[in-house]
Amino acid sequence: MRLGHWLEYNLCVKVSELGEFGLIEALSQLTSQGVADAGVLIGVGDDAAAWQVDGSTMLATTDTLVQGVHFTSACTWRELGWKALATNLSDIAAMGGVPQYALVSLALPGESEVDDVMQLYIGMLDAADLFHTAVVGGNISSAPVFVVTVTLLGQALADGVLTRSAAAAGDVIGVTGYLGSSAAGLRMLTHSVQLAPEVTAFLRRAHLQPTPRVAVGQELVRQGVRAAIDISDGLIADLRHVCEASNVGAVVNVGQVPIHPLVRDAFPGESLDLALSGGEDYELLFTCSREVMDAVRASVECSAESAGCAVTAIGEITEETGLTLVDDEGAPLEQGEKGWDHFKKGG
Amino acid sequence: MRLGHWLEYNLCVKVSELGEFGLIEALSQLTSQGVADAGVLIGVGDDAAAWQVDGSTMLATTDTLVQGVHFTSACTWRELGWKALATNLSDIAAMGGVPQYALVSLALPGESEVDDVMQLYIGMLDAADLFHTAVVGGNISSAPVFVVTVTLLGQALADGVLTRSAAAAGDVIGVTGYLGSSAAGLRMLTHSVQLAPEVTAFLRRAHLQPTPRVAVGQELVRQGVRAAIDISDGLIADLRHVCEASNVGAVVNVGQVPIHPLVRDAFPGESLDLALSGGEDYELLFTCSREVMDAVRASVECSAESAGCAVTAIGEITEETGLTLVDDEGAPLEQGEKGWDHFKKGG
Repeated sequence: MRLGHWLEYNLCVKVSELGEFGLIEALSQLTSQGVADAGVLIGVGDDAAAWQVDGSTMLATTDTLVQGVHFTSACTWRELGWKALATNLSDIAAMGGVPQYALVSLALPGESEVDDVMQLYIGMLDAADLFHTAVVGGNISSAPVFVVTVTLLGQALADGVLTRSAAAAGDVIGVTGYLGSSAAGLRMLTHSVQLAPEVTAFLRRAHLQPTPRVAVGQELVRQGVRAAIDISDGLIADLRHVCEASNVGAVVNVGQVPIHPLVRDAFPGESLDLALSGGEDYELLFTCSREVMDAVRASVECSAESAGCAVTAIGEITEETGLTLVDDEGAPLEQGEKGWDHFKKGG
Repeated sequence: MRLGHWLEYNLCVKVSELGEFGLIEALSQLTSQGVADAGVLIGVGDDAAAWQVDGSTMLATTDTLVQGVHFTSACTWRELGWKALATNLSDIAAMGGVPQYALVSLALPGESEVDDVMQLYIGMLDAADLFHTAVVGGNISSAPVFVVTVTLLGQALADGVLTRSAAAAGDVIGVTGYLGSSAAGLRMLTHSVQLAPEVTAFLRRAHLQPTPRVAVGQELVRQGVRAAIDISDGLIADLRHVCEASNVGAVVNVGQVPIHPLVRDAFPGESLDLALSGGEDYELLFTCSREVMDAVRASVECSAESAGCAVTAIGEITEETGLTLVDDEGAPLEQGEKGWDHFKKGG
């Protein structure tokens, strides 16, 4: 059966040809058979896995950062440690869960400095302390490049869990915070863009020290939201994940997409593309009825725990599949070579 | 406080100078403060972490295999997949627990073949199916070398859990199965040693498809054993881990160390060293009273579930710290340049 699935794939295809999502799809077909037997609530394909233990729903997620791929010497080891845990905290936030325990697997060259590894751990513990998470175990091994893998365990709230597959036609699409700031920070760092000190600090922080929306995720669940994802691949890519998992479509008004004024000013021609496709914002995208959206806004924006996080409605879930971007006048945009632009007939 | 710990270390030390265990010790000092607050039962430093959820004790462990470090082209992708899960299953076995859910993080070059990745997963699922474990999630990212990190979650039996820190003076030291077979297999593969086909198959399997002692670990708990570790670093290294964690010493009679006849025959001059220091056997080392040892032997060796696994008493835990190896006549051995040998005065 499993071998049957596997033989459907051309044996000589490279991973780069199939792509990350194609490979995940292929592997999830392989693993799904076993999962069905094991009483798993949510398996491969959401932000975190979920299963039942006694009366509680456990959550688990894992994420890897690779030197030269996900980070370079532009970030400090302490920032890297923060980010390694924060990306996982964001996955638990996207389920509306409570993060609890982390395991850390480090693969690193022997010539690495102990001080760097300690700084990495201090950064990770900065984030762990802030989000009441304990680092309970791990593993260290030798490798030609530095690879840090964090697995984070948590619990769902008794009220329920947020999933990618719960979006329904007619839902409003909401996002937390601002989008594109992390990608703007990455561009600043990789292109050595010179900006005012406070802008530099803001963008660096957005890219290297993202704040996972843990409290907001939990508040979404309490207010009755059931569909969410964290924005790690970019607004459009992650909204597509939700649409595919829920078998729905979406219309997004790009004029409503929240972009921080500092990002608009620093990258005037590119800020919309950064917000739509940049990724690594670790904000939450969620969908719910208009009534629930009003309740979410009132509760999240006024809550000290959510740090006054902005909540913005940017579009609507549609029965018809496919993703459409429109401007404030309702005119559709399409993706050209230079990013998202107004639809040009015959273009 | 944490910075205080950290500043005790010389800032220019390389990881290779401090060593794996030194680095783990340094990092566990950093993490221990947070752990104490989080209700963790067992944190960094045992085979798996443990914490309480409702009435159950959860277990979690993680392990990483790196291309060129832990595996080469001498092993198939399917064997690699098996081993990646088996090493983690062995950690749960060493706690006497029940493995349940696995998360898999793959970091791999884009030019990897999809077929190889599928084979890796099939090997992992071979082991998962056999030990009733579901692969519920994971992550795929790009990297210059292939790195596979598995995190395995499980539950402890209601009877209790096995730890490294529960050995007591007067305990008998027991081991399961045979030791040194995996290291003999590695030597055969890396030195291209030519052996009879059935010996080659046995040694290859011992090194690349170890069978984690999951059922035996659970039976140890049921019979009243409380101290155990899995033999991944080698008998001596892992017994030292138990002694240090329990603040005791040990005497091992090397004449009692179980070595498979095929290993003795294939590597007559080296088999004892392979058994003492080889590592990656993924057998269990445990300590308990003589009465419990008798009960364990009777129950494990006759049990179909444990596949008639041999249990051998190889020595005793002592109040005095330090590890002593003796031969059948009680004469001490010491480690020379060419491995473990009889103690030579002035040598």
